[in-house]
Amino acid sequence: MLRIFSYGDEQSALKQHLHRSVTFDAGVQKVVQDILADVAARGDRAMREYTLKFQGVSPDSFTVSAEEIDAAWQNADPEFIAVLEEAYRNIEAFHRHELDKSFFYEQENRVILGQRVTPLDSVMLYVPGGKAAYPSSLLMNVAPAQVAGVKEIHLTSPCDADGRVSDHVLVAAKVAGVSTVYKFGGAQAVAAFAFGTESVPKVDKITGPGNKYVALAKKEVFGHVSIDSIAGPSEVVVIADSQANPEFVALDLFAQSEHDPDAASICITDSPEMAEAVKAKAEEMIGSMARADVIREAFSSNGAIIVTRDMAEACEVSNMIAPEHLELHVRNSWEMLPDLRHAGAIFMGDYSCETVGDYFAGPNHTLPTNGTARFFSPLSVRDFVKYTSIISYSPEELRRTGERIARFADHEGLQAHAEAVRARLRTL
Amino acid sequence: MLRIFSYGDEQSALKQHLHRSVTFDAGVQKVVQDILADVAARGDRAMREYTLKFQGVSPDSFTVSAEEIDAAWQNADPEFIAVLEEAYRNIEAFHRHELDKSFFYEQENRVILGQRVTPLDSVMLYVPGGKAAYPSSLLMNVAPAQVAGVKEIHLTSPCDADGRVSDHVLVAAKVAGVSTVYKFGGAQAVAAFAFGTESVPKVDKITGPGNKYVALAKKEVFGHVSIDSIAGPSEVVVIADSQANPEFVALDLFAQSEHDPDAASICITDSPEMAEAVKAKAEEMIGSMARADVIREAFSSNGAIIVTRDMAEACEVSNMIAPEHLELHVRNSWEMLPDLRHAGAIFMGDYSCETVGDYFAGPNHTLPTNGTARFFSPLSVRDFVKYTSIISYSPEELRRTGERIARFADHEGLQAHAEAVRARLRTL
Repeated sequence: MLRIFSYGDEQSALKQHLHRSVTFDAGVQKVVQDILADVAARGDRAMREYTLKFQGVSPDSFTVSAEEIDAAWQNADPEFIAVLEEAYRNIEAFHRHELDKSFFYEQENRVILGQRVTPLDSVMLYVPGGKAAYPSSLLMNVAPAQVAGVKEIHLTSPCDADGRVSDHVLVAAKVAGVSTVYKFGGAQAVAAFAFGTESVPKVDKITGPGNKYVALAKKEVFGHVSIDSIAGPSEVVVIADSQANPEFVALDLFAQSEHDPDAASICITDSPEMAEAVKAKAEEMIGSMARADVIREAFSSNGAIIVTRDMAEACEVSNMIAPEHLELHVRNSWEMLPDLRHAGAIFMGDYSCETVGDYFAGPNHTLPTNGTARFFSPLSVRDFVKYTSIISYSPEELRRTGERIARFADHEGLQAHAEAVRARLRTL
Repeated sequence: MLRIFSYGDEQSALKQHLHRSVTFDAGVQKVVQDILADVAARGDRAMREYTLKFQGVSPDSFTVSAEEIDAAWQNADPEFIAVLEEAYRNIEAFHRHELDKSFFYEQENRVILGQRVTPLDSVMLYVPGGKAAYPSSLLMNVAPAQVAGVKEIHLTSPCDADGRVSDHVLVAAKVAGVSTVYKFGGAQAVAAFAFGTESVPKVDKITGPGNKYVALAKKEVFGHVSIDSIAGPSEVVVIADSQANPEFVALDLFAQSEHDPDAASICITDSPEMAEAVKAKAEEMIGSMARADVIREAFSSNGAIIVTRDMAEACEVSNMIAPEHLELHVRNSWEMLPDLRHAGAIFMGDYSCETVGDYFAGPNHTLPTNGTARFFSPLSVRDFVKYTSIISYSPEELRRTGERIARFADHEGLQAHAEAVRARLRTL
């Protein structure tokens, strides 16, 4: 179960306990590289074989039909559709704030400089199948692409052995306004959209969560296409003061850990009493959790309650972890913000539980994991646009600055660069 | 030399000629992976050995001293320093327009949602050595990091066999306000800053151009740290109408091709006469180019003049190529903009030659290469910041929406997620 560490006395033990090595699995890489090369070479034929091999089916069509989507919609609980629609509106509303505008500005001598923002032409959003077929992830991936203005949005989600894609996925796709859903999964799905096949279009970007084969395939095709950041095991840090509610803290740690035995759930508090109270509450409640086994495993390998000297030290420890999710169960969450440098998302106060952000509030739930919040960002509209610089120079400005620019090129030994300027100067 | 293709008749020949395969060199990958693993395991000792092996020297210090920087500054041509300073001011001014602001907005029931923009803590900017030690690249890499507010900016540039880093690099570093310059090069330099060694700090992001070992090393460490996009062979497309200046067009094609035999220089025109004029001008002038051999090689493997039916078709061909640099030697460049979907930078009109953008105007010259302008963007301030979502929910809003959120979690089979909400609802 959860172990309590005193940060002052047990720093090295704690660091060892929290150390999350990124292991490089050469075997998986080889498998993935072979699949990528095979799909690039043999296209649809390879896709048909892999789908039979890994999903146990050779579907009549690679895509879900309009009838299948309609049937899923008819079968769905109307209340579930309603909450999907409400969540999607919130997600869209938040992401509209992220839309960068093109800009230009003018300088003396009729120079215009600018930057243009345009949507990507086409993207593929991967949606895992089986138990991990989360409609919320689908909404979170599609919304920023829609807000960005991407014209071609393709979804793919591995079908089951009957050739069917999860009804939840199809309903969420319809809510998000996407009508093209492929039935592929795994590294081969990534390969098909990265290289294109006879019946699968090559896209510009591939996003979405997946197992280690999908993650490695995305990393391998990076450069042929763009990808979102590589998702690893996820984590939550809850900073709790002496007035926090131990039940809320314990449940939020459970919620993170029920995903995956690799998930890290960490409470940091300046109150030894709160540490004991959270531990006690967790032990009392864990028996009633549906996924108690997964939570227990995650707690023992990657869970911790850390007692710090004060809240400044708590912030330091949180910065060191750079958590995907950071919950502030404290009286003064906004005042604490300037001391917290690295986190994917920050949840302010007792009633901003992670679940609210996972499903409903509006900010994206695809967040940088495994300490990468130091340098990666939540999935955003910026992932679905590209930027182009615009340079409009005038003869007058070239006359004023051209010789200096040409000499700069001379210094780099690039004569044709310099001559391109000087030839223009000779005409002025 | 440059071959003229008629787009209507020779589409498939042209596609074959322009096809730029991305070859996967398993031998180089193995070398790079071994170096990465070795530096991760043995730190400074490995760095000392690789520097001796690849740079032929075991420098007394891994970093350039203040005295070395001062000496380079004293030796430098004051006019060169002045143009570096003027260029740096222009680059900074442009990049300040890219700085995203944090935002928040309020909803009913005291809900606050927002996004915070903060600089990365530390970055390493790679500067190639030898003939490719371009001070302009250094300015273009440092400026967006400085504008973003990155506190720790480390440069590294391979020293020569005397243990010295290029004076040009040191002068440019001082102009850009960076005082820490390491003497490492190659894949080992990337490894040192990705993993950290006894005397090299682990950073959050690695950017900058380099040879194929540096490029592959960056790709391999992606995820441990962030990187900029992977640079491949570069290209220019010049769209020329019947009134273009054939000398300007030819020189701009030379300027691109003098970099590298792999560089692609392509002129697209709707005027067969202009095609002939550009070809004739290029043949007439190439003898006077200092790098004529490189240009000839680049022209014959990756150069082309393409004659299209009209300007709409010229734009189509340009979109297909998605060039790093796109020059519009046409009367109506702004009117053409909406038809041009993919380019790293667009240069408007006869007097906006690429050289102006490479050195001086302000927009970044680190641009997406090899067709990746479909989905990648110029290096920017956005590369040196990260985004954090902020979610502040209220008890009132949770009372209004909580049960629906909990049911969404139920649908995904995540009971602890649901229970985290319901426990809060029970207190309201």
